[in-house]
Amino acid sequence: MPDKLCVIGVGLIGGSFALAARQAGLFRRVVGVDADADNLAQALEAGVIDSAYADPAESAAEADLVLLATPVGAFEALFRALRPTWTAQRIYTDAGSTKGSVIDAARRAFGSVPANFIPGHPIAGAEKSGVTAADAALFRRKRVILTPMEETDPAAVERVATLWRALGAEVTAMSSERHDRLLAGTSHLPHVAAFALTHLLGREDESEDIFRYAAGGFRDFTRIASSDPVVWRDICLANREAIVARIEDLRGELADIAGLIERGDGPALQEIFAGANAARQRFLELFENNQHA
Amino acid sequence: MPDKLCVIGVGLIGGSFALAARQAGLFRRVVGVDADADNLAQALEAGVIDSAYADPAESAAEADLVLLATPVGAFEALFRALRPTWTAQRIYTDAGSTKGSVIDAARRAFGSVPANFIPGHPIAGAEKSGVTAADAALFRRKRVILTPMEETDPAAVERVATLWRALGAEVTAMSSERHDRLLAGTSHLPHVAAFALTHLLGREDESEDIFRYAAGGFRDFTRIASSDPVVWRDICLANREAIVARIEDLRGELADIAGLIERGDGPALQEIFAGANAARQRFLELFENNQHA
Repeated sequence: MPDKLCVIGVGLIGGSFALAARQAGLFRRVVGVDADADNLAQALEAGVIDSAYADPAESAAEADLVLLATPVGAFEALFRALRPTWTAQRIYTDAGSTKGSVIDAARRAFGSVPANFIPGHPIAGAEKSGVTAADAALFRRKRVILTPMEETDPAAVERVATLWRALGAEVTAMSSERHDRLLAGTSHLPHVAAFALTHLLGREDESEDIFRYAAGGFRDFTRIASSDPVVWRDICLANREAIVARIEDLRGELADIAGLIERGDGPALQEIFAGANAARQRFLELFENNQHA
Repeated sequence: MPDKLCVIGVGLIGGSFALAARQAGLFRRVVGVDADADNLAQALEAGVIDSAYADPAESAAEADLVLLATPVGAFEALFRALRPTWTAQRIYTDAGSTKGSVIDAARRAFGSVPANFIPGHPIAGAEKSGVTAADAALFRRKRVILTPMEETDPAAVERVATLWRALGAEVTAMSSERHDRLLAGTSHLPHVAAFALTHLLGREDESEDIFRYAAGGFRDFTRIASSDPVVWRDICLANREAIVARIEDLRGELADIAGLIERGDGPALQEIFAGANAARQRFLELFENNQHA
């Protein structure tokens, strides 16, 4: 059993990883770092971590595995901060929602991407944030995408994959480009749309009335609009081109629908809505398949 | 106890109303009409209704209360079909998601809006449709909006309100204009956005991959994209101007966000996302207040 896990960013994802790894008996000790002192103190008090550090390099010094789980905008500074104790004998991985930007950050900090850094992304989340939302079961039956590069050490990839599987996740590998393209549609665009709609309705004079007469559909549609603003600011900036292209796609689709409504074209509207029905049914089958795998 | 309830359109809403009214002991007999013969047969077989009719006027002939619960696009023809047995001694109400269009349909069919027709809208739904999705508890702790006009009989409004309250709903009255404006934001726009996004992703070459790597956030965001295409086609056409205006608002908000992402304006993005967080928190407080009322 490896001795020590270091989690940098002990929030929803980092905290859940720490709890799950501990529950699975994968590490003897878990240490953590967090930019938010209150959150770090809570992580320590709740026993999610055994020791709290202010300095990333120091916290990683004796760890067998280091998980980077901060907002992705912090990664370049974090890689630089880790350099004093960075060693090829240790495995570093991350949980960032964008992968191209994380790889670029590593390249900028180190000159090239270290062979012992395994870029990863657990597709699991919640609209809650911080260590108080951490959940040892968060990754169970969820997908984790690893995006190793040519220079990445295959043995280290396998060790990280094994670790995620021990937490109940299903691990897939793909290129960072493909990851970022897929997630722009499936995750980043829905978040932006939910933020946009909730922000739009929330700033209006009638917003209290609007919300008072909203129902369960609205609650579910906007659930992801409660997600962490800093995390999502960073994701938007990190996967900029793909997200902007997706937003334009959605604006085009909305313009098409508005045009059909204006022209009173019932058959074409019905066809689009039925197409959405069918697409969501395909998604549900894939999703439930995965959930019961 | 009134003797007979007639439900025209025994789907999710009409079927749930029938079940709930029966469970509450409000009517001795429930009869129904449905354009979908299979759905009507299922309603009869499941005991949601006691008798099935093909002709609306005939089904309403001896009823004390008639609930119109078809897609709103069918209302004008339905009012005309009801004329042969329409009488001032009976109360007619509806469950349509748009109110201006329903009132206009009544005016076109009758020359003026009958005093014994009470326009109403239970803000309760589900992404499922048909009588098999009917649920006697659907209206419990939900809001019902009635939009009576100057010419509407106040005693009839009160009887309909009492009926909804007996099913566990909280009843409010407002103008049809205000109803349609509020609901365009809170219900119609989210549905259009969910349909648009799901349709957009579903028609792409990579759609299976996109959906495979989608998570719970996507499932919830797109839940309403599984709603009935005919119901939503009719709502879009019935509340045309307000919905098109709302779609344009959302397109504008999305364009603003895309612009901020392109310019790399992190602080402004974070402010919008935090504003959405706060707005959703206000919504949740109003929603939960209502749910536990």
